Amino acid sequence: MTDTNTLSPLPRVMLEPLVRAALLEDLGRAGDITSDAIIPADLLATTALVVRQPGVVAGLDLAAIAFALIDPNIRMELAVRDGTKVSPGQVLATISGPGRGILTAERTALNFLCHLSGVATGTASIVSSIAGHKARVVCTRKTMPGLRSVQKYAVRAGGGSNHRFGLDDAVLIKDNHIAIAGGIATAVARARAGTGHMVKIEVEVDTLAQLEEVMRLGVDAVLLDNMSPAMLREAVGIIDGRAIAEASGRITPQTAPAVAEAGVDLISVGWLTHSSAVLDIGMDYGRLG
Amino acid sequence: MTDTNTLSPLPRVMLEPLVRAALLEDLGRAGDITSDAIIPADLLATTALVVRQPGVVAGLDLAAIAFALIDPNIRMELAVRDGTKVSPGQVLATISGPGRGILTAERTALNFLCHLSGVATGTASIVSSIAGHKARVVCTRKTMPGLRSVQKYAVRAGGGSNHRFGLDDAVLIKDNHIAIAGGIATAVARARAGTGHMVKIEVEVDTLAQLEEVMRLGVDAVLLDNMSPAMLREAVGIIDGRAIAEASGRITPQTAPAVAEAGVDLISVGWLTHSSAVLDIGMDYGRLG
Amino acid sequence: MTDTNTLSPLPRVMLEPLVRAALLEDLGRAGDITSDAIIPADLLATTALVVRQPGVVAGLDLAAIAFALIDPNIRMELAVRDGTKVSPGQVLATISGPGRGILTAERTALNFLCHLSGVATGTASIVSSIAGHKARVVCTRKTMPGLRSVQKYAVRAGGGSNHRFGLDDAVLIKDNHIAIAGGIATAVARARAGTGHMVKIEVEVDTLAQLEEVMRLGVDAVLLDNMSPAMLREAVGIIDGRAIAEASGRITPQTAPAVAEAGVDLISVGWLTHSSAVLDIGMDYGRLG
Amino acid sequence: MTDTNTLSPLPRVMLEPLVRAALLEDLGRAGDITSDAIIPADLLATTALVVRQPGVVAGLDLAAIAFALIDPNIRMELAVRDGTKVSPGQVLATISGPGRGILTAERTALNFLCHLSGVATGTASIVSSIAGHKARVVCTRKTMPGLRSVQKYAVRAGGGSNHRFGLDDAVLIKDNHIAIAGGIATAVARARAGTGHMVKIEVEVDTLAQLEEVMRLGVDAVLLDNMSPAMLREAVGIIDGRAIAEASGRITPQTAPAVAEAGVDLISVGWLTHSSAVLDIGMDYGRLG
Amino acid sequence: MTDTNTLSPLPRVMLEPLVRAALLEDLGRAGDITSDAIIPADLLATTALVVRQPGVVAGLDLAAIAFALIDPNIRMELAVRDGTKVSPGQVLATISGPGRGILTAERTALNFLCHLSGVATGTASIVSSIAGHKARVVCTRKTMPGLRSVQKYAVRAGGGSNHRFGLDDAVLIKDNHIAIAGGIATAVARARAGTGHMVKIEVEVDTLAQLEEVMRLGVDAVLLDNMSPAMLREAVGIIDGRAIAEASGRITPQTAPAVAEAGVDLISVGWLTHSSAVLDIGMDYGRLG
Amino acid sequence: MTDTNTLSPLPRVMLEPLVRAALLEDLGRAGDITSDAIIPADLLATTALVVRQPGVVAGLDLAAIAFALIDPNIRMELAVRDGTKVSPGQVLATISGPGRGILTAERTALNFLCHLSGVATGTASIVSSIAGHKARVVCTRKTMPGLRSVQKYAVRAGGGSNHRFGLDDAVLIKDNHIAIAGGIATAVARARAGTGHMVKIEVEVDTLAQLEEVMRLGVDAVLLDNMSPAMLREAVGIIDGRAIAEASGRITPQTAPAVAEAGVDLISVGWLTHSSAVLDIGMDYGRLG
Repeated sequence: MTDTNTLSPLPRVMLEPLVRAALLEDLGRAGDITSDAIIPADLLATTALVVRQPGVVAGLDLAAIAFALIDPNIRMELAVRDGTKVSPGQVLATISGPGRGILTAERTALNFLCHLSGVATGTASIVSSIAGHKARVVCTRKTMPGLRSVQKYAVRAGGGSNHRFGLDDAVLIKDNHIAIAGGIATAVARARAGTGHMVKIEVEVDTLAQLEEVMRLGVDAVLLDNMSPAMLREAVGIIDGRAIAEASGRITPQTAPAVAEAGVDLISVGWLTHSSAVLDIGMDYGRLG
Repeated sequence: MTDTNTLSPLPRVMLEPLVRAALLEDLGRAGDITSDAIIPADLLATTALVVRQPGVVAGLDLAAIAFALIDPNIRMELAVRDGTKVSPGQVLATISGPGRGILTAERTALNFLCHLSGVATGTASIVSSIAGHKARVVCTRKTMPGLRSVQKYAVRAGGGSNHRFGLDDAVLIKDNHIAIAGGIATAVARARAGTGHMVKIEVEVDTLAQLEEVMRLGVDAVLLDNMSPAMLREAVGIIDGRAIAEASGRITPQTAPAVAEAGVDLISVGWLTHSSAVLDIGMDYGRLG
Repeated sequence: MTDTNTLSPLPRVMLEPLVRAALLEDLGRAGDITSDAIIPADLLATTALVVRQPGVVAGLDLAAIAFALIDPNIRMELAVRDGTKVSPGQVLATISGPGRGILTAERTALNFLCHLSGVATGTASIVSSIAGHKARVVCTRKTMPGLRSVQKYAVRAGGGSNHRFGLDDAVLIKDNHIAIAGGIATAVARARAGTGHMVKIEVEVDTLAQLEEVMRLGVDAVLLDNMSPAMLREAVGIIDGRAIAEASGRITPQTAPAVAEAGVDLISVGWLTHSSAVLDIGMDYGRLG
Repeated sequence: MTDTNTLSPLPRVMLEPLVRAALLEDLGRAGDITSDAIIPADLLATTALVVRQPGVVAGLDLAAIAFALIDPNIRMELAVRDGTKVSPGQVLATISGPGRGILTAERTALNFLCHLSGVATGTASIVSSIAGHKARVVCTRKTMPGLRSVQKYAVRAGGGSNHRFGLDDAVLIKDNHIAIAGGIATAVARARAGTGHMVKIEVEVDTLAQLEEVMRLGVDAVLLDNMSPAMLREAVGIIDGRAIAEASGRITPQTAPAVAEAGVDLISVGWLTHSSAVLDIGMDYGRLG
Repeated sequence: MTDTNTLSPLPRVMLEPLVRAALLEDLGRAGDITSDAIIPADLLATTALVVRQPGVVAGLDLAAIAFALIDPNIRMELAVRDGTKVSPGQVLATISGPGRGILTAERTALNFLCHLSGVATGTASIVSSIAGHKARVVCTRKTMPGLRSVQKYAVRAGGGSNHRFGLDDAVLIKDNHIAIAGGIATAVARARAGTGHMVKIEVEVDTLAQLEEVMRLGVDAVLLDNMSPAMLREAVGIIDGRAIAEASGRITPQTAPAVAEAGVDLISVGWLTHSSAVLDIGMDYGRLG
Repeated sequence: MTDTNTLSPLPRVMLEPLVRAALLEDLGRAGDITSDAIIPADLLATTALVVRQPGVVAGLDLAAIAFALIDPNIRMELAVRDGTKVSPGQVLATISGPGRGILTAERTALNFLCHLSGVATGTASIVSSIAGHKARVVCTRKTMPGLRSVQKYAVRAGGGSNHRFGLDDAVLIKDNHIAIAGGIATAVARARAGTGHMVKIEVEVDTLAQLEEVMRLGVDAVLLDNMSPAMLREAVGIIDGRAIAEASGRITPQTAPAVAEAGVDLISVGWLTHSSAVLDIGMDYGRLG
């Protein structure tokens, strides 16, 4: 989890288009034909979002927008905020208003909430596995198409930090770039000449020889790819605080402590956003009507 | 995997908007500043999409659209088709053309391809676990917001079948609907009166008593929720071919065989679309230029 | 008309994009230059939507959204609900608020309301022509591009029911499909293998011989195309309750009774959505300002 | 019909968004499940668009875009152009290419083509009813939401002309504007002061007294609403060529000759765009494969 | 400036999409990372929009929408209305509410407001330079892509008037059209035959000989391109009130008086919309929190 | 101008939506009624984009897309590339194909090209005024709503560099942030804790005392706001290479040399994107047909 006081929500203007699209995807051309046929229009209901696994919650704003877009008379009262560590059975929010609308919006609300809470929970698990070390956990550009902004937000909710948001906000020079440029020095020089002063430059290295060459060029960060903890420790020694040291390569909560122990500044983890399992959250309808 | 001869691709008019949005999400406001700075505009490259894990592939059309939208001069030649069972090291496609554009589109192409191949692979694993049984594996509405059409397609690529695509294409009466209606009979009657003749009606039941009541009402399908294999077998006996028997409730490749053995027609599995891990697919740049 | 208590409105999230687009189409690049020049900004007005022909009303929600989007200070109070049978001179709603905005939104509101009420009225006319028979009236996919969801809703408002909403929610095997497949049995087998368990299968037949072949295959519904009432009666006898019997082919309020008399379950009518005339509804400005 | 040499097609950039939206509306979330299951992917077909009623055709470009968007390998060869008067059995175009795609796009193509040809045919019927008179037939803003541009185009294809395209391209002062302004002179003065020099001003009048007042103000056009042919003739005499004389009010092919005979310049007809029936056009599949 | 009582605001349905797009362009994928990190979520602030140069204001509605879309709890109280002549130091509006949201929306609000006020100010400067003459100042189609509606509105706010809004609302025959048609008479005849009765026709002329030919054809307006004041005066004499006389060609506040003196009806000025400098408007945060 | 070999074009997927929107804005609901009426559909034309002022060109891709979207048969052959310094009379490109489409697309193509070339030209003027100094010229977030990506590109074409693209890609701490945080140190600490490792932090300072405090905090860049050249020189001495020194505050080609002389790394200039005048570029139609 994160400090819920410092986690900033994304503005609604960023979230609403995602929720509108998701609702329309579910409503199709005829809407919720089951609830429309069975639930009286004037029936009021109160229900609760309840978590069924331990984890960290993220996405409550998106859930709230889903209910509000279906029926502005539905009220969702939060019991916790995004970033909170929660326990099975804990109520995240109560929802009250027209029962038909609540049932119609339920799945869309849960699809956002369960997925993003899954991302936050996965992040928190790896963050807590390296507690006491200075390393931050960061996510990558390996995200679900269309959901990058909110997945990156969920990583922050889980206590992680964000790497690049896209191809345009930082330079990351990979092996192919170097091969084409004909060497690290040329690649870095071109990147420095071709980008603005607010853009950081990071270079991916596979060997310590490459790393030493990179350090002579004065870049902002180095991506140490698929190195063993021992090699990482040696790399950190070479870098010696002159650049951000980032470890990468299929790191899990099991392998993370050794990586962190090596002294890196960052551990980047792709599965947070491309392979997290959902956090199980459901709706408990105590009494409808 | 599925029979690749019977798997129909989705029309490009359905896929292109997803790929455009994903590319713009990654390009941001300045585009691929790394490749633009380092890769000469006239450099040609040939590369290959290579799979690194055993699995079933899905999403090659989306990858191809990503490359084509970035640069129409990029050519992607398929070595396999969606639905193919693949082995580590196997080439899925070769991509040739302007190297800068290939690098720019790479992550978006892979984000679709790795995720959807993950969904197909997960589906295939559970499908093969019940080989020899009549049961089909189906997915649910627990999908990633915005990606339902392509995730459902990936399930088909993995040899599964699709349940409802949304709230509007079939009736699924759950416990809350029944509670509000004041009984199963009323709920079914309202659903039948309120929907069209091409809409099937399914009812969720938790007990065999409920099941017997439902069978007297003549519905199209019954969702047997969270029942043990023994209870499922008893349920199948009660249904006796008069409706489709669907089993549901956290079914995994481990538990699926017993469920299938019970004689159900369908096994519905939420995690295929909400919690599948990616299939590891990468780009191998043999020689750039 | 329909039972207005059972007609469910479509969620605003489905309707609002249609109304926004229609308003922008009418406002163009300069807005309502006539009212802007002539009507003082602070003038308040009260007006009424009045129907000038007997019919059934549909589309009041769309009209209300049109006024609200132009000026949230405009209030529209409904006197009737969609699905109501109305008489010439009857007030459907009163509208009060800034006069300029009312005049600006008027045509867009009426374009939706008059057209959809026309669809509902056309539907009601054919529904009432077969009163006492079991047959339901259904519409087709022959709809105005972009308006399918609301036209199908208007059919429901008129007491009709809906056939397929698109190419994806049911199988309808036509003569061309059969010809290509090389026979009805093959076509049905492929359809059954290729689609999910919640999808119904209907086959179009022109002759009783075809019908008998289809009945041996156990499909959900049969489309009896362009058959005489006598032939329809014979077909119904062959079907004998084993599938839904649907009659199709230029059926009008004049010819519908004989078709219904033949005992079919459904009468499908394309002109409801492609050729309905508007219901004449206008605005009566008693006093402006 | 119109002179097909002078009818200009609308640019594809205006048409394509309409066709994309219509295709997606029909494809839903799973595409054409019937054709996908039954039609082999490599089957080629040739078919023809054939008209079944006398009429005037409009919308061939939209049909062509529908086929091309579904599959760029489908070729549509035009036998006639929009604006052509056609007879039952006449081939409008031949379509050849992958049979599956042709079947998938067929309904969307026909929905545009049949509706717009219906508008063109309705227009042509009233235009021909007044042949020999100087009056032009014009349409109104009573259009199908979202389809105004193409409906107005269809009116041109039918030999008609266009009135305002929206609220912003001309001033039309109606009775309510006059009542609020406190008189015709004030309303016209405000309109003239408040709009640009390329904007024409038209005033609606119900009586000859109003007409005489309007003529003293020097407007561009006068809308003579719901006047008898005799009164129209008198009005035309008062106007005496100093403004465009437009007759309005439920004019049909039956009543149009008398209206035209009265000497008006324009006859405006709402039903062309809000209540036209389709022109019956179908696909004839001679041989598929 | 204009008479602020007669300047009509554009409906919010036209403005909101522009503001949403501008906010998303600025928020990117992570939002306002500076304010989110530094400004406490519950801090309230009051600030003012203050003008720093003399000018005419336009765009306050767009600014208000920007703040409201970021946080509906932000209130913006107008001190002046669009079209007001303002002095350095004058407060245009006060803004109060959550400080974080105010800072986030500030730049987008100012980008609209400063640009449109710049357009209004430029317009007012040329309008006032010809005070006492009958000529109106009009803008052209040389606008910033995507901003035409609001730029044209800003011209009205500055006391100017609008020429065509696009290619479709009036005919403007230029030299190329004439050359292709083979003469002015043919071009005008084709235009008259090909367009509706509510469309005005204007012809561009370079010489007095052309002008005399045009006047014989009875067009609505004549564009006198790049003529000297003396030649313009002669042209006005030839026109003699039979058409609108419009002068065009790099007219500035310095050259405008002589042009107006020549007696033209309109002076059209491209730089109002393509090259206006901003009006300097800033936010003064007296006290935050 | 810039080195045209290093200026990378933006991918078409980023540009096309802008051009589509601009074309639709100009085409309105009826298209180019003048050209449609006058220019024969089969007339071919050849024309040239010719510059009429000295400057630097930018936006040729956008112009090419405009012509191609109106008619794919129009060919545009570039004579120069974006970033080229051009002289009056120089041909930028020749355009050939259907004359009607060329005329229809002309204004949209020119609106992009003239504006962006104006931005590039303004940038080049200030860049050349400081030739020989190390300072780079950068633009700001004071951009035309909706055009930020292409304006920033035009700045690069003019030889400038880019500052932040939005609120999310770098931290810029201004006086208000500092005041609210209760001091520079707190503000910087919060920013560092709240943002990712690839994000640079810049702080705005008005005094040298503030600057000294900031330098003790180790930020990436300092914005020296509204300082005299003498004060800037002193500031550069204090910074002493430990951070990027950026000068800001109404800098013009006249004042820029003294600012550059002071030794700053960057000169940021708002008017490049908010107040540049167009570069005059026109179409020369040698012979049409």
